[in-house]
Amino acid sequence: MRTTTTLALASLFSLAACEIPAPAKHRPPPSAPPSAATTAPTPAIESETRDLARFREEVRRSSNAYATLVSLVDASGARLTGSPGYDAAVAWAKRALPAAGLANVRTEAVKAHHWVRGSESASVVAPSPHALAIAALGGSVGTPKEGLEAEVIEVPTLDAIDKLAPSDVAGKIVYFDTHMERSADGRGYGTAVPVRGKGASRAAKLGAIAVLVRSIGTDDDRLPHTGALRYDDAAPKIPAAAVSIADANLVHRLIASGQRVRVKLALGAETLPDVEVANVLGDVPGAVAPEEIVLLGAHLDSWDLGHGAEDDGAGCAIVIEAARQIARRAKRPRRTVRVVLYANEENGLAGGDGYAKAHAAEVDKHVVALEADFGSGPVHDARFGGTAEGRATLTGLLEPAAIAVAAQEAHGGADVSSLHDLGVPVVDLVQDGTRYFDVHHTANDTVEHVDKNELDAAAAAFAAAALAIAESDAPLGRAPSKK
Amino acid sequence: MRTTTTLALASLFSLAACEIPAPAKHRPPPSAPPSAATTAPTPAIESETRDLARFREEVRRSSNAYATLVSLVDASGARLTGSPGYDAAVAWAKRALPAAGLANVRTEAVKAHHWVRGSESASVVAPSPHALAIAALGGSVGTPKEGLEAEVIEVPTLDAIDKLAPSDVAGKIVYFDTHMERSADGRGYGTAVPVRGKGASRAAKLGAIAVLVRSIGTDDDRLPHTGALRYDDAAPKIPAAAVSIADANLVHRLIASGQRVRVKLALGAETLPDVEVANVLGDVPGAVAPEEIVLLGAHLDSWDLGHGAEDDGAGCAIVIEAARQIARRAKRPRRTVRVVLYANEENGLAGGDGYAKAHAAEVDKHVVALEADFGSGPVHDARFGGTAEGRATLTGLLEPAAIAVAAQEAHGGADVSSLHDLGVPVVDLVQDGTRYFDVHHTANDTVEHVDKNELDAAAAAFAAAALAIAESDAPLGRAPSKK
Repeated sequence: MRTTTTLALASLFSLAACEIPAPAKHRPPPSAPPSAATTAPTPAIESETRDLARFREEVRRSSNAYATLVSLVDASGARLTGSPGYDAAVAWAKRALPAAGLANVRTEAVKAHHWVRGSESASVVAPSPHALAIAALGGSVGTPKEGLEAEVIEVPTLDAIDKLAPSDVAGKIVYFDTHMERSADGRGYGTAVPVRGKGASRAAKLGAIAVLVRSIGTDDDRLPHTGALRYDDAAPKIPAAAVSIADANLVHRLIASGQRVRVKLALGAETLPDVEVANVLGDVPGAVAPEEIVLLGAHLDSWDLGHGAEDDGAGCAIVIEAARQIARRAKRPRRTVRVVLYANEENGLAGGDGYAKAHAAEVDKHVVALEADFGSGPVHDARFGGTAEGRATLTGLLEPAAIAVAAQEAHGGADVSSLHDLGVPVVDLVQDGTRYFDVHHTANDTVEHVDKNELDAAAAAFAAAALAIAESDAPLGRAPSKK
Repeated sequence: MRTTTTLALASLFSLAACEIPAPAKHRPPPSAPPSAATTAPTPAIESETRDLARFREEVRRSSNAYATLVSLVDASGARLTGSPGYDAAVAWAKRALPAAGLANVRTEAVKAHHWVRGSESASVVAPSPHALAIAALGGSVGTPKEGLEAEVIEVPTLDAIDKLAPSDVAGKIVYFDTHMERSADGRGYGTAVPVRGKGASRAAKLGAIAVLVRSIGTDDDRLPHTGALRYDDAAPKIPAAAVSIADANLVHRLIASGQRVRVKLALGAETLPDVEVANVLGDVPGAVAPEEIVLLGAHLDSWDLGHGAEDDGAGCAIVIEAARQIARRAKRPRRTVRVVLYANEENGLAGGDGYAKAHAAEVDKHVVALEADFGSGPVHDARFGGTAEGRATLTGLLEPAAIAVAAQEAHGGADVSSLHDLGVPVVDLVQDGTRYFDVHHTANDTVEHVDKNELDAAAAAFAAAALAIAESDAPLGRAPSKK
C-alpha cells in the first residue's frame, strides 16, 4: 500500500500552476552531497517529500485565506441561523466558491431551529448597583417582559448543585462559577462547557427561576460568551445567560463578601418557527476517481454576537483556500476534493445531519472528512478516526507534508460527526487554540483577532493534507459505524 | 533653601509606624565600605535620601491601594454624575477616608449637569447587515425615538471636514476615521480627541444629521470609548456616538470598497435637570503649619460604561493610600496633606470648579496640588507648573525619593486646573499610560485591567512626593494666575 501511494504521489505531483520562485535571499543553499553515514532515501520518496513540502510552503506564501475571511465577514457580519447575515453568507459563498475555481457549486437546503436573542439586560440591584454584561444562552427561553429579580446563589460547578436541597435553591437565580483553563488544545472547554449546556435544567429541577453561567472563555473582558444550552424535558425551562468574565468576578466577589446579592434579569429570547437554510458545496473534480470524495468542511453560520471570524470564518477561509490552491494546479487531483460550508453548526447541527442524509447513497465513497473549526491557529499535528490500517496509510501520506499523525483518536468536527457515525474516517488537523477561547462566541470574534500569517499557515497545512489524500489511490478504510 | 529643606526632612523623617522588615532572602547584603574614588555625600543628605527612599519602598510593599480600588468598584460600580453609583461612591468615601486615618472627612456639594445615556443601538443596513457596537458621546442629544437612517460619508480628520461642501454632507451621517497613536505619555489622545469634542458641531454646520467617531482608544475590541462632546452654539445639536474600533475598521472597509454604506442609529440620550453631587475631602492635619495644604486629588466619578477602575478608581486608590501611609507614621507631617475626591470630572468639572470657589479664601495656602488621573501605571518622573524657583525647590525635595523633575511644564489634572488658574503650583507625577487607552471610557475599565504591582508602585511614588513636600517648610511659589 505504501509503495503504491508513493508512486502515485511521485508521478502525479505537478506544481507548475503554483510555482512561485523564492526570493534569492531565501533560497536554500544547494544540497550538500549525502554523507556516507546517511541512509539515502529512495528517489521516489525524496521527490514526493520535496514536492508536497514545496506545495505546502507555496500555498502559505500565496495564500488568499485572510482576504477570503475579510470578504466573508464584510459581506455577512454575524450569521446565526435564520438571520439576514446567514442568507448574505450563502449568497457570498455562491460567488466565492466558483471564484476559487470550484465546480458544481450548489446549495442543499435543510430545516433548522430558529432562535432569536431579542433585547436583554441584567444588573445587580443589591448590595450595590452594577450593570452586568450578559448574553442569553442559545436556545434559552426569555424572561417575563418586565424581567425577573431574585437573590443569587453561587454554585462552583455543575455537579455541586446536586448537593443542594430545593430549599437552598427554590425561587433563586443560580450563578455557576465554573472557570475554564487556558490550553493549546482547548481541553478546558470540554471540561467546563457542560455547565453551559446542562446547568439550567439541573438548577430548574431544584426550583431555580433562572441561571447565570460564568462565561466559558479564557479572557477577562466585559463581553459574554454565548453558546447553546440543552433543556432536559424533565425540568421546567428557565432562562439562562452567560455573564462576562469580568462581571462574573464581580458577582463572585460580592457573594464572597457575605452580602446578599440580588440580580434583575430580562431576556427577550425566543424560538420562532423552523427556517430553511442551506449548506453550500463545491468540488475540485477528481481526474481519475471523481466519485471518491475527500471532504473539507467548515461551518458558514456563526453566533449572533460577533462576526464569526475565528468561529468559523477562519475555517471557511482555510478550506476554500485549500481547494483553490488544489484547483489551480496544472493537473486535477486523482480524487474529488469537496468543500462543504455547513449551515447551523452553532445551534442544531441541521447542516451536518442534512448532508449525511442527503448523501447517504454515496457515503461509502467519502474517503475521509476533515473539518476546520478551531480558529486560525497553526496546525501542529494530525489525528485520525478510523482503523489501524487507515491510520498507517494516512501516516505515510502526510509524512511528505511534514504532518505527523498523533496516537490520539480523532472525533472529527461537529458537522462531519454524522458522516463519521456512518463509517467515514475523519482526520483532525489539530490547530493551536491557546487564544481561541478569548473571543469564542463573543462580540470580539472579529478579524482583528485573526493573525494573517497563522491563518495562511493553517490553510497551507489543510491544502497539503487534502492534496496528499486526493492524489493517493490508497483506501483509508471505514470507521466503526455507530448507526 | 536647599539646606533648610534637607535639615527639615532629615530631622522629621520617622518611619517607625510603617517599618516592615524585608524577608531574609530579600535583605540587601551589608553595604561595602565606600571606595576611595567615591565622593561621600554629606551625612544629612545621605540620611534624608535613605529615609524617603525607604518610605517609598515600604509604602509599595505594604500598599492597600488595590484592595481600596476593588472596594470602591464593588461598592459603587459605574459612577456617572447623577447615577446611583455616584451616590454609592460618596457613601463609600465617607467610610473609606476615616478608615484610612484621615481627619475632618466631609462632603462639599456642587451642582452639575445630569446626562443619561438611555438605550442605544446602531447597525449597518446596507450593503450588508452588521450590528455596530456604539456609545453616545457624553452630552449628546438623542435621535428621534424611531432612530434615523442615512448614508455614511467618511472623513479622515476633524479638519478635513472643512474641505467639504454642504452638498457633500447634508442629510448624511459623518463618520470620522481619526486613529489614535499608542504611546507611554498618551500624547496620541491629545492629538485625536478634538474630533470627539468638536466633530458633531463641525459636521452639523455642513448639514450632517448625525456623527459617528472612531473610538479614541488604542485597542481593537468591540467596546466603544465614550467621552464628552461640546456643542458649538452656532450649529444645530446633532446626535453623536463613538464606534468601537473593530466596528470602525469594518465601516471603513465597507466605504473603502466603494459601496454606499447606510447606517441606522438610535440614541436615547438626554440631559435632565441639574443634580447636586459632592466632593469628598479628608485631611492629614499638619503638625507645624496645618494651614498649608498639599492637595492630593483624584476624581470619584466615572463614565457609565465601565467600572471606572483605571479612570479614576486607580487615582482615588493612589491618593487615599498615599494619605493613609502618611497618616500612620509616628509623626504627623509638617503641613496638611489633603485628599480631595472630586465629583463630575468626566462631564462638567463642577467638582474642580466648585472646590476652587469654595476655597477661594485659602487658595494662597495651597502649597501645591497633585492629581492622580492617568490610571495605575508606574510613575517615571515629575513635572512642575509654577515658577523657576519653585521648580528648583521641588527638584531638591523629590530627589531623595528618586523622582526626577523633567523640564516640561505641568498643567495639572483637570480637577486641579481651576486652582492652578488661581496661582496654585501643580505637580504631575507622570505615569506610564501605554495601555491606559485600551480600556479608557469603555465597559472594559475594570479591575481586571489594573496591575496590582504597578498600582502599588504608583501609590508609593505619590506618597513619597507628598510627604517630601509636606515635611518641607520651603515655599514652592505661585503659578502665574490666569484669572
